[in-house]
Order: sequence, then C-alpha cells, then structure tokens
Amino acid sequence: MAEQIRIAIAGHGNLGRGVEASVAKNPDMRLVGIYTRRSPDQLTPRDSATPVYAMTELVNHTDDIDVLILCGGSKEDLPRQGPELAALFNTVDSFDTHARIPEYFDSVDAPARANKRTALISAGWDPGMFSINRIIGEALLPDGATYTFWGDGLSQGHSDAVRRIPGVAGAVQYTRPIKEAVDRVRNSERPTLTTREKHRRECFVVLEEGANAEAIRQAIVTMPHYFDEYDTTVNFISAEELARDHHAMVHGGFVIRSGNTSPETPQVIEYGLKLNSNPEFTASVLVAYARAVHRLNAMGQHGAITVFDVAPGLLSPKSAEELRREQL
Amino acid sequence: MAEQIRIAIAGHGNLGRGVEASVAKNPDMRLVGIYTRRSPDQLTPRDSATPVYAMTELVNHTDDIDVLILCGGSKEDLPRQGPELAALFNTVDSFDTHARIPEYFDSVDAPARANKRTALISAGWDPGMFSINRIIGEALLPDGATYTFWGDGLSQGHSDAVRRIPGVAGAVQYTRPIKEAVDRVRNSERPTLTTREKHRRECFVVLEEGANAEAIRQAIVTMPHYFDEYDTTVNFISAEELARDHHAMVHGGFVIRSGNTSPETPQVIEYGLKLNSNPEFTASVLVAYARAVHRLNAMGQHGAITVFDVAPGLLSPKSAEELRREQL
Repeated sequence: MAEQIRIAIAGHGNLGRGVEASVAKNPDMRLVGIYTRRSPDQLTPRDSATPVYAMTELVNHTDDIDVLILCGGSKEDLPRQGPELAALFNTVDSFDTHARIPEYFDSVDAPARANKRTALISAGWDPGMFSINRIIGEALLPDGATYTFWGDGLSQGHSDAVRRIPGVAGAVQYTRPIKEAVDRVRNSERPTLTTREKHRRECFVVLEEGANAEAIRQAIVTMPHYFDEYDTTVNFISAEELARDHHAMVHGGFVIRSGNTSPETPQVIEYGLKLNSNPEFTASVLVAYARAVHRLNAMGQHGAITVFDVAPGLLSPKSAEELRREQL
Repeated sequence: MAEQIRIAIAGHGNLGRGVEASVAKNPDMRLVGIYTRRSPDQLTPRDSATPVYAMTELVNHTDDIDVLILCGGSKEDLPRQGPELAALFNTVDSFDTHARIPEYFDSVDAPARANKRTALISAGWDPGMFSINRIIGEALLPDGATYTFWGDGLSQGHSDAVRRIPGVAGAVQYTRPIKEAVDRVRNSERPTLTTREKHRRECFVVLEEGANAEAIRQAIVTMPHYFDEYDTTVNFISAEELARDHHAMVHGGFVIRSGNTSPETPQVIEYGLKLNSNPEFTASVLVAYARAVHRLNAMGQHGAITVFDVAPGLLSPKSAEELRREQL
C-alpha cells in the first residue's frame, strides 16, 4: 500500500469525534494527532493510541501533518483559525455561514496561496453535498426549479433558542418537511411554496418547576425568525423522556431539481440523505475531501477551494484507472 | 455575454434530437451544425435555421466547432467514430458498454492527446450521474453497501429481444424495481439481494394474427440472460393500445449507499432520477459536460477523460465566484 495520508484534527467537539471515527474507516489514512484548546490530558480519544496535543503545539508539527481538519465552529473559531492555519497546513473545514462564505474564502485564499497550501472550505452536507446537487441539477435541467427540504432533523440553533426561554429546563426542536409539498415537487408540479408550506417545526420541552406551559408555548410559536413563519407544535415531556428519546443528532433532507427538457417532458432529479448522526456524516465528508486536498496540493493546486472545484474521482481511494474499470 | 460555445451534433437519432432541445435551453451555447450519414436534405432539424451537413463534411469544419457531441451507438458507431473524431475535435459521448470502457478510453486518449483535444467519454446517467453517485457514496461511507435500482423504465434492449420472437407484432418491456427490496435498503438493512429480488420485468405484447399467446409467453419468460432470472409478467394488448400508452421512453432509477459511520450509526444516501424521456435527459447530461470539456480544453487538459475527472463547478454556466456567493 502507498504511504498513508497523515490526518490531524483541530478541535474535539462532536465533529472532531466524528472525524476520529471516519479516519478509522479509511485504510489509506491515519490519525496523527488531535489538537485541543482544553488541557490535553482531559481529552479521551476514541483510540487511546492517538496522541493529543495542546492547540499551541500545531506550529511545531507542520512537517508531520498532510491535512489538518478544522473542527471548530463557524461563528467564533473558523474566522480566526482558518486563515492562520491555512498558512501552515493543507486544511479542510465546514464553515457554514452561507452569507459570509465569499469573505471567508478570500481570508483563507491569500495565506494558503502564499504558502503553497490547499484549503478547502465549507465542506459537509449543506453547504457541501446539497450544494453540489443544486448546481449539477441546474446545469442538467436549466429550465426548472430547485427545492431543498431539510429533515426530519434536530436543529441545534432552534433547540438552543427554546432553551434560552425562562422556565425551560431542556428542549429539542425538529424540522420536518411537509409531505404534501414534497409530493407536489416530486410530481413535477413545480409549485411556489411559502416557508410555512415547506417545513413545520416540532418542539419537545421540559418545564422548570412551576413554569407556565401556555406562556412558554406562546413564547416559542411567536419567536421571530426562528418560529413565527412556521406552524409549530410544542410537546411538554419529562426530563427522563428527553434524555431517553431525543439524544440522537438525526438530520437529513433532500434536494430536488424539477425541470423540462422539452415542452412535454418533465424530468426530476432527487438527492436525499437520511442521517442518524449529523456530525458523524459531516465528518465523513470532511475526511473524503481531505483525501482530495492532499492530492490537489501534490498536483500544485494552491489556495482556497470549495467542493465545486473537486472532481469526484479525487474523493475515492481508488485510482482513475480502477474507477473507470470497476465503477463507471 | 461572453462568446457562445459552438456545439455540433454527429448523428441524429433520439439522442441527437435531445441534444438539439438541450442546447436551446442553454443561452451560453449555440448549435452550429448537425452532421448525418443520411442525405442532409432528408433531415428536419428542430430549429429550421440549424445547418445540416453530411458527416463527411466534418473534416472541413474543425475551426468552426468548439465541442462535437457524438450521438451514435456504442456498438457500431462510437468504437470507430470516437478515436477518429477525437483527433479533430473536442468531443463528448455516451459510450455505455461498461465492460469495454477501459479499451475505448485508451483508443480515444491517444489521438486526443496527440492533437491537444479533450474527449469526455461515457457521459449520461448510467454510466454517468449514477457512477458519480456510486463513487462519492463509497468515499463518504466506506463501511457499507451500494445498491442500484433501475426503473420504472422502458428497456430498449429487452423490448427488441421480445420483438424478435416469431409471432410478435410489437412489444415494449419495462424494468420495475421491487418495492420491498427498495424499502429494506432505505431502512439500512443492507440485504443481500438476488437478481430476482431486485427487479421484475413486465412486457406488453401485440400478437400477429394467429400467433399462440401461451407459447410466446413461455418464449419470453424463459429467454436466457434477458428474462430467465426475473419474474416476468406478459400482457397482450392491441396495436392501438401499444401506440397510445407505451410510446414514452420513460426511465430512471436510484443509487443508494447505506453505510455506518460508527457501530450504532447507519446513514443512507440516495440519488434518484424520474425521467419522462431517457434520451432527452441523457442529451442534457452530454450538453452540460460539453461546457466542461470546452473549459478544460482551454485550461490545457488534453486527452480522454470521464465524468470522474470533472469538478461540478465546470458544469455550471456561472463563474466560480458566483457559485460560491449564490449556491454553496
């Protein structure tokens, strides 16, 4: 076997743990280190043989890592870490603040280019696999409409918003696509759908002792941006039920492109994900793109790139010749 | 607007007619000619302004065509045309004899490379979009299984096989995925499925006067390779019913990758197509890849390539910057 790709992880939350699991499934890679801002001895890696270092050690390990996977958050961590670390390493991240992607791209591109590094930003499933399917769908069926549905899925941001309401002891929120809307799209109707017609929201809430359930229900369903444009169901449950039934970070959704190739000929393309762990799947995407980044860097493609710039064959451990022979 | 990409068509069957329709949907392209082995004046293009030439004229038009889309068949036409025309033009084709792809690739690669041309082979949906989804699915979920289901779809090859039986005046054959198998795969069961468990076949047959229906039914269901490994239903209908209800070249199917990212965590990726015209959709894929071929040739990537070698962004008429801003 060729030499293994040396992967390291910066940041060890759910996403970082997912990358650990994913690298273990890819024999052409090995995990050479986890870098954390916490004290390294407080972190228990999935495989006890994996070295754990303080984040400040990264600068001393630039020759030991082929691709560094940045597992920090898009709000606080990546805007600072991305540009800094792209000067030192080939990187992959999951920056997902859609509106700030152009700005983030530029901030990573300059240091990566100056230091002959390759930095792939905004990988994952949305942005990521869903984005790819949106642009391919449009390219194949230019006369048509694209629909993205999310769920059934647990939304971290919406769950947090509910938890911040006084009187709420615990909560999760699920986004659910509305079946009638999905069916119409699948049937080539190409409807115009409002926010309320595409998704509904469902909350499971644990009340603090003495809290007013109806007041909390009202606070949730009228919350601007988060809930007011949707039909929202609020269910009150016990702390035990919350812990037992709602710990899985399920998510998914689908991208549908519906278009006509001639006046009488509708065609439908659908890409869907059914995920039992959102962070583990996102991590698997980052790891596959780490393989591509390693190859692209060796081919001399430097600077920032996105999933749009990566040919599918580069994601596979197989050679181009094997892929043509076995999988085309 | 930038200069339009000049597309030409070699071969004017169902696929060539689909390319005509597709180019008309893409404002960054224009159709500069249809080349035929028939007499040019016998061919009526979709748009009467499109010039029609004899195939022998192609050699005189090498400076007038940016990408030539080869719309001939994989059995007789492409093995000869592909290498010849890749010496003169950038080309895209839909060569779909899976087992002979490596050999065909090499036969096209040498002349294309020698003449600084770019030749993309085996585009379409299978091989093509399905192949891409198979390799990406495996790269994202290396610990898992891939399933391809076809249909509901009209199979040209199987329809022809039925038509060759003496006593058959007309026939179509549909391939249908078996719902129970699909449901098990979608539910992460990862079953081992026999040929018979994955698809069934359904034929609609018009008998010649005096033909023995039961003998023909037997001849169909026991036909080696085509039908004997499947459960096949044979329906006898009138010539009028055949013409009225079975003229559409519907097809489609789905590729499902089911895999685990950790012991307790199954994940499912599904890509599906529901096509009301198989040739028009295939043509749309060829046209989108013609855009990519035009760009790759300008970037100096010469020789034969496949869909595995093309980054998704190259399929879109939008610039990389627009794609990042609007669609990531």
